[in-house]
Amino acid sequence: MRDFLPADKTRRERVLAVIRERYRAHGFDEIETPVMEEYDRLHAGLGADNEKLAYNVLKRGLDAEAIRASADDPAKLTDLGLRYDLTVPLARFYASHRGELPTVFRSIQIAPVWRAERPQKGRYRQFVQCDIDIIGDASSRAEAELAVATLDTLDALGLDGGSIRINDRRALDWMLDAFGFPVADRPGVLITIDKLDKIGPEGVAAELRDRGAVESAVAAFEAFLVRPVTLEYNSYGERQIRKALPDGAPDEIVAHLVGIGQAVAAARGTLEIPLVFDPFLVRGMGYYTGTILELAHPSVGYSLGGGGRYDGMIGRFLGQDVPAVGFSIGFERIVDLVADAAADGVDAVVLVHDRDVPVGELVAHKTRLIGAGARVRLETRTKNLKALLERAAADGYTAFALVSAGADDLELKPLA
Amino acid sequence: MRDFLPADKTRRERVLAVIRERYRAHGFDEIETPVMEEYDRLHAGLGADNEKLAYNVLKRGLDAEAIRASADDPAKLTDLGLRYDLTVPLARFYASHRGELPTVFRSIQIAPVWRAERPQKGRYRQFVQCDIDIIGDASSRAEAELAVATLDTLDALGLDGGSIRINDRRALDWMLDAFGFPVADRPGVLITIDKLDKIGPEGVAAELRDRGAVESAVAAFEAFLVRPVTLEYNSYGERQIRKALPDGAPDEIVAHLVGIGQAVAAARGTLEIPLVFDPFLVRGMGYYTGTILELAHPSVGYSLGGGGRYDGMIGRFLGQDVPAVGFSIGFERIVDLVADAAADGVDAVVLVHDRDVPVGELVAHKTRLIGAGARVRLETRTKNLKALLERAAADGYTAFALVSAGADDLELKPLA
Repeated sequence: MRDFLPADKTRRERVLAVIRERYRAHGFDEIETPVMEEYDRLHAGLGADNEKLAYNVLKRGLDAEAIRASADDPAKLTDLGLRYDLTVPLARFYASHRGELPTVFRSIQIAPVWRAERPQKGRYRQFVQCDIDIIGDASSRAEAELAVATLDTLDALGLDGGSIRINDRRALDWMLDAFGFPVADRPGVLITIDKLDKIGPEGVAAELRDRGAVESAVAAFEAFLVRPVTLEYNSYGERQIRKALPDGAPDEIVAHLVGIGQAVAAARGTLEIPLVFDPFLVRGMGYYTGTILELAHPSVGYSLGGGGRYDGMIGRFLGQDVPAVGFSIGFERIVDLVADAAADGVDAVVLVHDRDVPVGELVAHKTRLIGAGARVRLETRTKNLKALLERAAADGYTAFALVSAGADDLELKPLA
Repeated sequence: MRDFLPADKTRRERVLAVIRERYRAHGFDEIETPVMEEYDRLHAGLGADNEKLAYNVLKRGLDAEAIRASADDPAKLTDLGLRYDLTVPLARFYASHRGELPTVFRSIQIAPVWRAERPQKGRYRQFVQCDIDIIGDASSRAEAELAVATLDTLDALGLDGGSIRINDRRALDWMLDAFGFPVADRPGVLITIDKLDKIGPEGVAAELRDRGAVESAVAAFEAFLVRPVTLEYNSYGERQIRKALPDGAPDEIVAHLVGIGQAVAAARGTLEIPLVFDPFLVRGMGYYTGTILELAHPSVGYSLGGGGRYDGMIGRFLGQDVPAVGFSIGFERIVDLVADAAADGVDAVVLVHDRDVPVGELVAHKTRLIGAGARVRLETRTKNLKALLERAAADGYTAFALVSAGADDLELKPLA
């Protein structure tokens, strides 16, 4: 868990403001849920491994007897926990407020989540997630809206050139069936295939054999991989998708993927769309039921976010299935990429004054500059003026003036 | 704890954006600290009654034996807690990062805090605090900067006409001494005097007698209250302040109060400043050591925020006293007051379409409008068009268009 000093906090808020503004432009409405959710809801099996990493809040008013009685079941000591993602709270929110929401509900959530991870570089126990979700639309237009809004947001952050890898869990399942992997082996096979980028086709085939996978299925997988596994999906032709799958892929799945491409092409007004169909994209979360998406950017080797369709989850809270698809951009990673983004365009002035300048004159100067649209910090002059100005520049200030007693005008100079 | 639906969330974010922008203009720098702090720090006596309301987080990895051993001391079950205010985290932050901060550090914090209050109307267990603090400036300029920035922020929110009640804890202590209350009785006497607005001078005198206060002191208090207790502090003359205190008030305290008025007058460019000197203003927190401030607004009978000087607190973490003064505006109350504030000035358009409009045409319309600066929601036409449009209006949309297949142009109509 981290403290954020002014320069970092300013950059984070600036990035958040762009994300919020762009997603809102695309018709997403922001909501907020409480940081704490009921323990039982956080541990209903929807959070997968994250459930084990949840911080739980001690029940209040426990007496010695109640504590002793909980010794063998620590869950009895808690009734609330800190959320570990924004998807479980969204499902609960939607079930509670459905009647007050539009038929197709497009939500934005920008909020911290907590996971008790082992400390390691780049992993934080409190971090911000930015999720957009569309609930109530089973059509491929929903995926297209997520993709277009996200790419537009990246562009607005100065990170143009982003692309989205896309696949469908149903296509993946069908393909594994076509290769001849038994359904019971599927979870393990997927875990291995998810390593394709890291260990390559030979590594995957070797690990599948180590797992004791059916030899003919592994051989089918190897034979298939002679064909390109990642295809540029750069027009709305159906041919590209069929070419990247074994023969005879189900029409419904192919049509959904084609529909996404068509809608993205129409929204961007070009057939050169930044969608990359990757039939071996897996993504970890167990709750995905259809399309899966992953955001890539040429400047980094890791993904900048991802998401997918989870048509089954809302039903767990609502008792009635509702189609849903979401996308989560990796805010902490994106903030690092825009680290050197331009300032916020406001003149930021440090007024450095000697101790003998009357307070009344100082605050009058300050008021006048604020009135002219600047932001203004007062600093008493110290022996080391250079150090003082350097710190102000690090805090985002762009100009300074030396203030003497009785001066009418200030000479503003740029901060290097 | 509350969910915020889109209309509420939008209003909250809009108010936050104004507060953030105005305080930044006045030279305050925003910081952020983690939601969880160490248990021991939260329970070091600085949070007064709020410490008892803290939510504590269950230690991870407790085994049955450890739980049994904690039966008589539940504090052993926890090592972290959710913050109940932003002042304790700020003191910890300043002690950790002093070397990276300007000599006079002006901070903004806008963040949720948690208190396990009994549920009642208008009290929430999770609520947002907006604090500004100035650390490292013992002069009256600091109080003036807090007051001017806060009044400017209220103005920017459309809540002009705010005023600030001001007093000094040292003046209060001195006055109670002058009346003849023994020092040992002071805490109880202050609790009673704090009720002056509610129960009036007679009520206060009666309660003081019930407490067994020294009769001559109570009589001195009653005699003093024949004079006006709340004085308009509307110029920087010293006379007003002296008139509102018993004769012989210490020069240092009066000079500090006068200095605040002078600086506020200089900043606002007028002698008609909205500071009201109230020698019986108490404010609850035990850690105040000097000036105390309370924000009032003619539209409501309760305070909209408050603060004061707490020169002793930073020293508890740093081992070295540093002057500090802070002000916290009551964000949840202010949000309610600006409930009917104007929209965010962006065209917000709902495109209502029949099911037969090709997705490509729809998203192309949407992209075009977004490119022109609007925010755009797609809605499939339902039987009850009126209800659909009413909900969109409630969500902040300002215009709509009916989309037919093949239409080139859209006719935008205002949403009533």
